[in-house]
Amino acid sequence: MIYLDNSATTQPYDEVIEAFRKTALDYYANPSSLHRKGGEVERLVRQARGSIASLLQIDSDEVVFTSGGTESNNLAIKGTAFEHMNRGKHLITSQIEHASCMESFRQLEKMGFNVTYLPVGSDGQVSKSDLAEALTKDTILVSLMHVNNEVGSIQPIKELGTIIKENSRALFHIDDVQGIGKVSLPIPDTVDLVSYSAHKFHGLKGNGLLYKRRNVSLFPLLSGGGQEKEVRSGTENVPGIVATAKALRLYLQQSQSNSEKLHHLKSKLQNELGAINEVVINTPRNSAPHITNFSIPGIKPEVLIHALEEKDIFVSTRSACSSKTAEPSHVLTALGVSNARARSAIRISLSFQSTEKEIEVFLVELKKAIHKLKQVMRY
Amino acid sequence: MIYLDNSATTQPYDEVIEAFRKTALDYYANPSSLHRKGGEVERLVRQARGSIASLLQIDSDEVVFTSGGTESNNLAIKGTAFEHMNRGKHLITSQIEHASCMESFRQLEKMGFNVTYLPVGSDGQVSKSDLAEALTKDTILVSLMHVNNEVGSIQPIKELGTIIKENSRALFHIDDVQGIGKVSLPIPDTVDLVSYSAHKFHGLKGNGLLYKRRNVSLFPLLSGGGQEKEVRSGTENVPGIVATAKALRLYLQQSQSNSEKLHHLKSKLQNELGAINEVVINTPRNSAPHITNFSIPGIKPEVLIHALEEKDIFVSTRSACSSKTAEPSHVLTALGVSNARARSAIRISLSFQSTEKEIEVFLVELKKAIHKLKQVMRY
Repeated sequence: MIYLDNSATTQPYDEVIEAFRKTALDYYANPSSLHRKGGEVERLVRQARGSIASLLQIDSDEVVFTSGGTESNNLAIKGTAFEHMNRGKHLITSQIEHASCMESFRQLEKMGFNVTYLPVGSDGQVSKSDLAEALTKDTILVSLMHVNNEVGSIQPIKELGTIIKENSRALFHIDDVQGIGKVSLPIPDTVDLVSYSAHKFHGLKGNGLLYKRRNVSLFPLLSGGGQEKEVRSGTENVPGIVATAKALRLYLQQSQSNSEKLHHLKSKLQNELGAINEVVINTPRNSAPHITNFSIPGIKPEVLIHALEEKDIFVSTRSACSSKTAEPSHVLTALGVSNARARSAIRISLSFQSTEKEIEVFLVELKKAIHKLKQVMRY
Repeated sequence: MIYLDNSATTQPYDEVIEAFRKTALDYYANPSSLHRKGGEVERLVRQARGSIASLLQIDSDEVVFTSGGTESNNLAIKGTAFEHMNRGKHLITSQIEHASCMESFRQLEKMGFNVTYLPVGSDGQVSKSDLAEALTKDTILVSLMHVNNEVGSIQPIKELGTIIKENSRALFHIDDVQGIGKVSLPIPDTVDLVSYSAHKFHGLKGNGLLYKRRNVSLFPLLSGGGQEKEVRSGTENVPGIVATAKALRLYLQQSQSNSEKLHHLKSKLQNELGAINEVVINTPRNSAPHITNFSIPGIKPEVLIHALEEKDIFVSTRSACSSKTAEPSHVLTALGVSNARARSAIRISLSFQSTEKEIEVFLVELKKAIHKLKQVMRY
């Protein structure tokens, strides 16, 4: 099997599954229980939190465990909006965000907030002057994706953060679900909130992280027992938390030793795709190493996906979270790609485990599939 | 080890951990991915949903997967409030709810909703006339716990549901986290929303269920990719979902074959506790079979907990989710228990695996501990 859909989800590391299993088996008490068994489990959570904090170079009390990237994004956005609405009701984001951000903003608009959706250039970046102009004294939040999940474009977070902090009192939230480990981002001083999803770094589904800068207050979407310093209540998913810490450590190790390889695979993939007549590459030049988006105008991407899966090769059309809509990708549209091209897009997303051999097989099979489909469809 | 803290959390069944492990290992694709691997995983989720629906005697499309009981309660309460606020801003609950409901209502009060907190009698039940009087044309939600987590009291859901539906257009939400399998409740026609938590029925932490009657609409707390029919977005925690279905099936089987035993253990426990001079039982007469709450006025419950854990016996003071506050239990206070008694409460919570032998050992060690502590504390 050649799995090239790593932006949808990654295969959990064996060690991660084993850490989950062992924790669920041996440490099942509730970490809030006052007895010794509860204390042992609480210690595990504390260790995992400490380990994650040190890997992300943040403080332990800035780690919030959530149920996934979607919850982290929703908590950052709605949590800021509901908490700080008395300071202002203006929010800024871009036109190429993930559905979990986009839909949060749509909901807030219906509740009376004003949202500016900044356009992006063909490079997927918002313009600095657009951002500076959009900021008002009522702006309480700017939320931007670091690495785009469909095309791999990179937002210049550090520069944008400076503009935000120099011109407003807004909080700055980053969706770094796709960027972590792939495009270096030590969290800048200007950033207040960062979302991560464990199953995108070979951890387990149902687990996410939110970096929350100390002293930033959020309206808890899930309130109750006061876990996670009252920001996110609910009995801690202890085995999931231990597994997430393990996954992050292994993943960042792999990131160090495999980063060059990934860049090499990307070049190879894009050069060879570029040489195929029918292919148009949608991914901008300066982009993350793991995502390559291209179109074959005239061929329905679903048909190509099924042709490739017959050869045990798995690719996608776009974000898994938007895969079932018939609309052309909002990301490609925002990048200025034509409708026909946006409707025929294919996304290849690599992992650090991807090999040169896999890319070669993929390219061979892709060419065969195009040839075959062109005949069938009288291209 | 004698584990008598099953209302805080239960030990996951071995088969449940194994189901999780196997699914995480072999079925890691994203169920929203269009390729075959995604389809296989989507099928697993569909099967788990169908199995849960059939066990709960509801329809598949009435099952919403969440990250736990806290999320289910928050989604039911805030989801109703935000969705239906144009119909009215009055909400009704009781004074003995779980923190995840209580805190949701406190948040909503701060946002301009009016909340009636119905009092309860010494039996932990709200009065029917109080409920009928509280309902107004602005009432959009009544939320009540089926079985109380601290004392095991049972709310007469069916009768209360009739009053609600005959006198209002309010939705009726039940927190059945503690009741499921212990106190029979086929979901009555009058109930619209029911919360469950997997780790309370030997499933895994980080997994919950919300029964949502078809056609009931909720404001999604977590929006995005539109999973769970748009009510709860986020990549499905597939291994957790499969494990939850397995846990529920095994648990309800155990419930059938061990229900009588549990009632017998409860009688034995309460009779023998009642015979100890220093003990006052707080659990009302008609209550759930697994929870027994009692006080030993004058002895700090933490001290007793630690004395028992030296004998490898694990009990608690109250809800794990409220275990770290110094306040007397709000549940016992609402039941009319004195402050001194409410501050010295111990909760024993059994599982279907609990044995008569364990209860006997517990009682022996409890008596020894009381004797010892009385001497130390000059009782």
